[in-house]
Amino acid sequence: MNMKKTLFSILSAGALIAFCFAGCKNTTTSEVVETAGECGKNAAYENIMTRTSVRSYTGRLVSSDTVEMLLRAGMAAPTARNSQPWHFVAITDRAKLDELAATNKHGRMLQEAPLAIAVCGNMDKALDGDGRDYWIQDCSAATENILLAVNALGLGAVWTGVHPIKERVEAVSKVLNLPETIVPLCVIVIGYPNESPQPKDKWKTENVSYNTFE
Amino acid sequence: MNMKKTLFSILSAGALIAFCFAGCKNTTTSEVVETAGECGKNAAYENIMTRTSVRSYTGRLVSSDTVEMLLRAGMAAPTARNSQPWHFVAITDRAKLDELAATNKHGRMLQEAPLAIAVCGNMDKALDGDGRDYWIQDCSAATENILLAVNALGLGAVWTGVHPIKERVEAVSKVLNLPETIVPLCVIVIGYPNESPQPKDKWKTENVSYNTFE
Repeated sequence: MNMKKTLFSILSAGALIAFCFAGCKNTTTSEVVETAGECGKNAAYENIMTRTSVRSYTGRLVSSDTVEMLLRAGMAAPTARNSQPWHFVAITDRAKLDELAATNKHGRMLQEAPLAIAVCGNMDKALDGDGRDYWIQDCSAATENILLAVNALGLGAVWTGVHPIKERVEAVSKVLNLPETIVPLCVIVIGYPNESPQPKDKWKTENVSYNTFE
Repeated sequence: MNMKKTLFSILSAGALIAFCFAGCKNTTTSEVVETAGECGKNAAYENIMTRTSVRSYTGRLVSSDTVEMLLRAGMAAPTARNSQPWHFVAITDRAKLDELAATNKHGRMLQEAPLAIAVCGNMDKALDGDGRDYWIQDCSAATENILLAVNALGLGAVWTGVHPIKERVEAVSKVLNLPETIVPLCVIVIGYPNESPQPKDKWKTENVSYNTFE
């Protein structure tokens, strides 16, 4: 009888562990299960697939710790020859956000949002020569990292373009008091979501070729 | 005695559940725990922070299902006015990879890799007017998504730049038989890792300003 109870305990525990790990997974395809041994690998893929633009926010403020996590995610992006040619301006000041709203066709969102991050290129750190414009790609990768971190942390955001549209670059530079060497690529508008938009399904087989363009 | 055993079983099960969920989390800051209620939110953030360039690969081939998952991650990126101005060429053919290696200063990696994805801009879908070059930012976001999906699925990769360096654009276009309207932004070299490089810590407080540039 004691043996039976011990066996029962062991089996129950085993079932619970299995159940618990299964709960961690939110499987989309058998492929994920095959390749993602650890809990969370799958969640990282799902985070990419569920990110979408969020344009309405609650009044909840974003803590400075969370802001730092978003900036750390941005700086984790790869850069050409590890040049890290970027500068980030985090804007939480209400008056400054409203000033920025006036420069932006997405003004309404900025008026509602508790946070914006301007991702900028630092021309003092950009490469010289024909690879100079790699700063645009590096800063875009940083921006996408921030958007994905936003989604991972339960926030919502939208990427609003600035560079290469001259008037926008000038207007944002003026509000943020940027020197000429700091060029705003975009302004990410961020807050806690007040809407739950469905991510777009943008998968199109005609956008893919195999081995050569056909 | 029976009561005691039952109680013991319940407590053990509880401890196991707690242990199991704790195992799902790999906490970096208290902030994550606060905001990430579900298992995996944390893992999505960690996936961004642990991505790094992998330049050496085992002989293991990448399945077509996995290639499709990477391409789906790319197409999940946001694009200016939802223009989706991209085209992806997935290269798994050994001869084609070797041909590509000859055009690339990262040739050795391509000779070893079982997969490369050329992320290209599609000029027929790029915006008109002063926002035309947003395709570069859109395709860079798609590239970063693919790199993060690579990391999530246990693969390794490195972003090798092509556009705007003219000779590289011409060489890659020739190998992949690209028409003039399809411009290669970069070639992502992908495989199962044969090295475990430590992610660089690129966090620098001097790269951040708050509210205005100081």
